[in-house]
Parts: sequence; C-alpha cells; structure tokens
Amino acid sequence: MVLRAKGTKDYAFEEAMLRKQVLNTIEQVLQSFGFNALETPILERLSTLTMKYAGGSEILKEVFKLKDQANRDLGLRYDLTVPLARFIALNPQIKLPFKRYQIGKVFRDGPVKLGRYREFVQIDFDVVGAVKPLHDVEVLQVLVKVFEKLELDVELRVNDRALLNEIIKAMRVEDEEQQERVIIALDKLDKLSVDEVKKELMNAGLSMQKAEKLLSIVMVKGSNSEKLEFLKQFVSSEALQDIDQVLKLCQGLGLKNIVFTPSLARGLSYYTGIIFEVFLKDLSIKSSLAAGGRYDNMISFYVSEKGDKQIPAVGASFGLDVIVDALKMRGVSLPKTNVQVLVIGVGVDALQVLKTANALRLQGLNVDIAVKKSLSKNLEYANAYGIPFVVIIGKQELDKSVVKLKNMGSGFEVLVPLQTVKEKIKELTTK
Amino acid sequence: MVLRAKGTKDYAFEEAMLRKQVLNTIEQVLQSFGFNALETPILERLSTLTMKYAGGSEILKEVFKLKDQANRDLGLRYDLTVPLARFIALNPQIKLPFKRYQIGKVFRDGPVKLGRYREFVQIDFDVVGAVKPLHDVEVLQVLVKVFEKLELDVELRVNDRALLNEIIKAMRVEDEEQQERVIIALDKLDKLSVDEVKKELMNAGLSMQKAEKLLSIVMVKGSNSEKLEFLKQFVSSEALQDIDQVLKLCQGLGLKNIVFTPSLARGLSYYTGIIFEVFLKDLSIKSSLAAGGRYDNMISFYVSEKGDKQIPAVGASFGLDVIVDALKMRGVSLPKTNVQVLVIGVGVDALQVLKTANALRLQGLNVDIAVKKSLSKNLEYANAYGIPFVVIIGKQELDKSVVKLKNMGSGFEVLVPLQTVKEKIKELTTK
Repeated sequence: MVLRAKGTKDYAFEEAMLRKQVLNTIEQVLQSFGFNALETPILERLSTLTMKYAGGSEILKEVFKLKDQANRDLGLRYDLTVPLARFIALNPQIKLPFKRYQIGKVFRDGPVKLGRYREFVQIDFDVVGAVKPLHDVEVLQVLVKVFEKLELDVELRVNDRALLNEIIKAMRVEDEEQQERVIIALDKLDKLSVDEVKKELMNAGLSMQKAEKLLSIVMVKGSNSEKLEFLKQFVSSEALQDIDQVLKLCQGLGLKNIVFTPSLARGLSYYTGIIFEVFLKDLSIKSSLAAGGRYDNMISFYVSEKGDKQIPAVGASFGLDVIVDALKMRGVSLPKTNVQVLVIGVGVDALQVLKTANALRLQGLNVDIAVKKSLSKNLEYANAYGIPFVVIIGKQELDKSVVKLKNMGSGFEVLVPLQTVKEKIKELTTK
Repeated sequence: MVLRAKGTKDYAFEEAMLRKQVLNTIEQVLQSFGFNALETPILERLSTLTMKYAGGSEILKEVFKLKDQANRDLGLRYDLTVPLARFIALNPQIKLPFKRYQIGKVFRDGPVKLGRYREFVQIDFDVVGAVKPLHDVEVLQVLVKVFEKLELDVELRVNDRALLNEIIKAMRVEDEEQQERVIIALDKLDKLSVDEVKKELMNAGLSMQKAEKLLSIVMVKGSNSEKLEFLKQFVSSEALQDIDQVLKLCQGLGLKNIVFTPSLARGLSYYTGIIFEVFLKDLSIKSSLAAGGRYDNMISFYVSEKGDKQIPAVGASFGLDVIVDALKMRGVSLPKTNVQVLVIGVGVDALQVLKTANALRLQGLNVDIAVKKSLSKNLEYANAYGIPFVVIIGKQELDKSVVKLKNMGSGFEVLVPLQTVKEKIKELTTK
C-alpha cells in the first residue's frame, strides 16, 4: 500500500482551482504595488538556516535536515525570509529598495494538526531597504487590498515592537531575556485566556500586580487615537511616533479595519518596528491569515558577521491553507475542472473530433475530447467532472456544418454553426 | 559567508520574469486541452520513490533521503510521475480519463553541470486512462502548440517503444536484460557519435555485424511514410500500426515537424508505446526541451502489488531551465521589473504620493513609489530597474490637477491629468 508522507497533502479538483485563484489574486495585487517575483531554492545549507539571527530556537528544532552524496549538511527552508536575507547577502550590488515576492513551499517537521502540515505554501512579500513610514503603510495597503479582493471580512491588528518593548520596560522589566519571555507570553493572548496569559507572565518572573498592570495597559479599549492617547501616560511620545504616523497615513488613505492593538506581540525575536496580523472579523478561524512586520537588523547579520551595516526591511507572509479554509467556510464554490466544453463524436472518425476540438480552442475555449464508447457514458463523464457544455458531432451535423451544443446544467440543446459556439455559450450563461 | 547549497540557483529580475512567462504560456495551452492542476507534496515516503516500477536504478542513486523526527524514511521527489501514480493509487474513485498537469520542483542528488541543477522545475502533463491513439496525438498537439506559442523552432522526434523492441528482437536479441542494454545504448545516439554507440552495442553483447545492421535499420532516412515502408521488411505490420495511426492523425491535423525517428529509445524502462522528444531544430542546445511517452503498466503496480489492473497512461514533461536557455539564446529580452510607473513626489507629503500611486493602480497600472531624497536619485532608481515611465508630482502640478509624465526611454515629458496617465502611456508606447 502506498501512502503519503505524514503531514503532507495532495490538492486536486475544486481545491486546486481555489488555491490557484487565491495565488493569482495575491500575485496581481503584489505586482500592482511594484513587487517582483524572486525564486530561491528549497534546499539551503544547514548553516544558513541555523544562523543565530534566523527564526529562533523553536523553529530550528523543526528543520528537516539532510545530506548530499558528498556529505554536506543541508536543510529544507522553513520560511522565505531567511532565504531572502541569504539572497541579499550574495547580491550586494542590488539597488535598494528591493521589493520582491515569493510563492513557495516551506517545511517544518513539527506536530501535525488540522490545517497544520509539514509542507505548506507561503506567499511572502518584503521591501528590503524599507523607508519609514512609507513602506510600512504600503505593506498594510497590500494586505487590505488582497482581502478586499478575496471578499474576506478581516481586521488588521497593528502594533509596534519598539513601543511594546518600552511599555514592558516601563513595568521595570529590565532583563533582556525576561523581556523576551514577556513577549512570548503576550503572543499567546489570541490562543489562551487572559488569566492563563497572566500566569505565563508570572512564570516569566512578573509579580501578579505587574502582570495585571501590564495586561490592563496593553489591552486598553477604544479607538486607535484613544489608545495612543492613553499610552502617553506610560511611554515617551517618541516611542509612539512611528505607529502614530502609520495610523494617520492609513486613515488618510481610507484604509478600513486597521486596529491598533498594543497587546500584539508576534513571536519572532527579530522584529524591530511595526508588527501586524490579519484575522477574520468573526474569528471563525482563530489562526491569522497573514502576518508580518519590520525587521531592521536581521538581514545585516547575513551580510556581515558583525551586522554593522543596517539593512531595514518590512514585509508580510500569507498562509495559503488558512485563506483557502476561510474561503471554503464562506462557501466559495468552484468547478471541478477548467474544461468548458467536451466534444463527443457519434459515428464520426477521430480526426473529425480532434479538428472540432481545435476549432473550439481557437475561439479561446478550454476543450476536452470524449473517449467513451457510448454517448450516455460520455455525458456521464461530463457530469462527473462538472463540464458545463458538450458539443456533439454526428454525420448529420457534419453534413449541415453545424454541431449540437448541450447545456449540461439545464439539458437545453441547440444546433449552431461550429464557429459560433463560444458566442452561444456566452449567451446561454449570461441569461 | 553565506552561500547557496551546491547545485541550486536563485532566479530574479529578467530571468524570473521569463520563467513566469514560459510557465503561463504552457499552463494556458494545457488548460485549453482540458488538463487541470494537481499539487502533490515534495516529501514522499522513501518506499514510494524506490518502488521497483519507479524511475529505475540510475535515478534511485540520486534520491535525496531524509528522516522526520519520528525516524520515518522520506525522500524528495525526483520526478512528478511517481507522485501521480501514488495519487491515483490513493484515489481509486477518480473517473478516467484523468488529465492533470503539475508544475513543481524535483530534486536529484547528481553531478552538477551547466544547465543541470540538483533542484529544478518540471512541468508534467499526463492522461491517466489514456486511449490510443487519441491521447497520444493530443499530447503531441500540446507540445507543438506550446513551442509554436514560445516561437521556438523545434522538431518532435517520435517513435514507439514496442516497435523498437520488435526491431531489436528481429536482430535475435532475445534476452530481456540484453534488450534493455541495447535500448540504453541507442538512447545515447543524441550525445555520442554513431561509432561510439556501435561500441556500446557491442559492449551490450551484439556482434559488430548485428550492431551495424541494427544501426542501419533504426537510422533509416526518408519521409515518415518511407521509413514506415522500409521497416515493414523487419517487423510485423501490427507493430507498425500504432505509430502509423498517430502519424496519420498528426498529418490530418496539419501538425508540422513531427519526425518519425526509429532510433529514438528514451532511457526509462517503463515506456510501453509511443515515445517522443522535442529538440531545437538547429541543435544549438543538445538537450531535449520536452519528452515523454506512453506507460501502460507502471501505475498499476502502485495500485496493487500484482499490477493486474492495467491503467494506461501517456504524458510528457517540459524542462523549464532548458526552455528558458533556448529563449535567452534566441535573444528574448524582458524587462527587469513588472513596474510600469514610478511615482516621485517633489515637495509634497507622503500621503499625496501614496494617493497618486493608488489612483494609477485603479487604472490597472503596476506602480511603485519613489523614496530617495532627490529627484535625480529617484530617476536613477527608475533607470536601474528599467521602469519605463515616471510620474512626478510637485505643488505646482497638484494645484493644476495634473502630473508630469516622463518617458524614461526617450526623455519626453508631458503634463497630463492624473486620470489619463494610462491612456497617455498606451499612446506613447504604441507610437
């Protein structure tokens, strides 16, 4: 018995079509915002993937490791950000800002859950050499536009890591390691209850009082500007300036559903500025649909060991699986096939069937040819695949230079000249 | 110093654009012929990849092997045919014929040469449950159409493995292993000289006389029908029937550059009927651009160990790298970026720049925003990326509700209303 590898999946029919449609939508928006495709390999040197400034220890446990025949240590990429950093390091001549997107499989040898696979598609876009606040706003614009086009009702939670750090410091948490543990605890607010996060904060060494105080500050309610106003009590106005500018520009551009969320933490340690996550408004799916942020130091450590040449960057990553799940929950229905017409020959030779199919392709239709022995078997095949129309050619039809066009949905049949089939299909489907 | 893994490559700028364009062309043709996308994982169980009826011992040496954390044996797929067979085995309910295409990375841990990488993109399309000769002809039609659209001048060498087997048997080579060695020797005719292949045939156990005789038969010259006629002396007319039917249909459909090539062997052992390879006519690149054939027994061994339920299939595989190399040699020139317009603000605020860019995107343009300090630096940036137009907005322009549109190629500048920029660009580029 042949089986798939654990944590992997096949995508066919409706699901493959839906995935392709989502990718096309995202790609089109990205191109309209000036992002270009980059393709990097799936195999990277293990040393590249395990560098100190890569994804952090939790991800590193999950790297698939392998060797080539010469015993070199390799790994399968677990994200598309580290390969981008490696690419920039190898191509120092590239003029910044460099705006790239990449669509590709990434691999994580971790626990398998519903909607969480060991091999999955990510869509990343980043601006390397990113300018504040223009490119931060641009990334948010892309996110808003994509979900608008996908007709998914989302909210974009936005925060600033530097601001969050300052709030945590204002709680007199001075130790860097402790700060990081506090951030990891806050990052769980969308998965755990507030009480549970409070416990995690206390595990990180905060007193109950401090933990409660911190939570009450970062979970402040109100409009974006009310929240900004409230935070001024605890942090300097400089710390608030970046996020303030971004929010003002978003407002000026009429971007909706941007929610300033001071509790948003994002797990990865390399973020330095704006951070954001996109969620369905109704939270019918709890995972984020896209997320990202600004990382001004990470790439520089790939360029030189000292990391002394700062290369600021901002970007985000879409999860294809969760977006497709959201669309399926909304009830998007797609056909099982791209095929628009199945050509069925009845008592005519193979060449005639092939020629008819070609003539229809020249009209711009996606056409398949029927190969079953009987008309009824062929109609059954069209039904099984959800092919919307069939064209039947028999000797009678050929003699009269027409074909029989049948709408598989309604059962309606009509004799039409071959060269008008596409027109007729258009007419029948718009009625 | 961070480096790529040996035998891997990055694709950016012009090359990434060209790859995408080739993929789009191929995908469009495949869809017009009724093929639908299938996506299978890169990770497969090692046992699936190393089955007796998979790619054969030469490929198996080159499988990248790895383990997951639970110590399961996995491998990276080395082609897209074995995963298709595995998919069919796991989905016995699928109605045949099942026509799928797949675009994806495959991996081979072999010697690295110019144009030969350890990780590369293949585009496969296959009909599972394929009918003779209709689907054989359809696969050839797809190949002809794709290279026509890519404007590459190719010839399709076509043969039939069963026919070749009969010719070899007619030389009284009865031993199956020896037959296979003869096929592997003949397969080298496009890489070695005739004398060298003769030596290989003799190494396979043929007498010099038999080797010469065999070569003189399979290397017969003439038109397709002359070759068929010639071969009737050596083999039964049944053996010639399949290829005769295919060639007649190709002729009836007006398919050009189909060359019956009785010496064509194809290395893989699982072929059972028609086989074919596509080469540039001028042979400026010696590798084939696409190749494939009919394999009527291979899938059945994935479905049941006995392989007693025949599932005939025919398909082909395009090599993306070699096609792109061929286009580059032909001198296809593509821009470095998708960006059509760079918006430069001079003395206006960021919001105004972002709004102008959005207005242009609504016209359907791909737009980037300039972020350098001076106009000249921004124009330099546009030049470096080959962005064809810039839109400059200053206070003066804003006051008059116009923008300055500059053609970066010619240097021509004109003031136009914002909402007419796309029109104007069209006008300027078609002149």
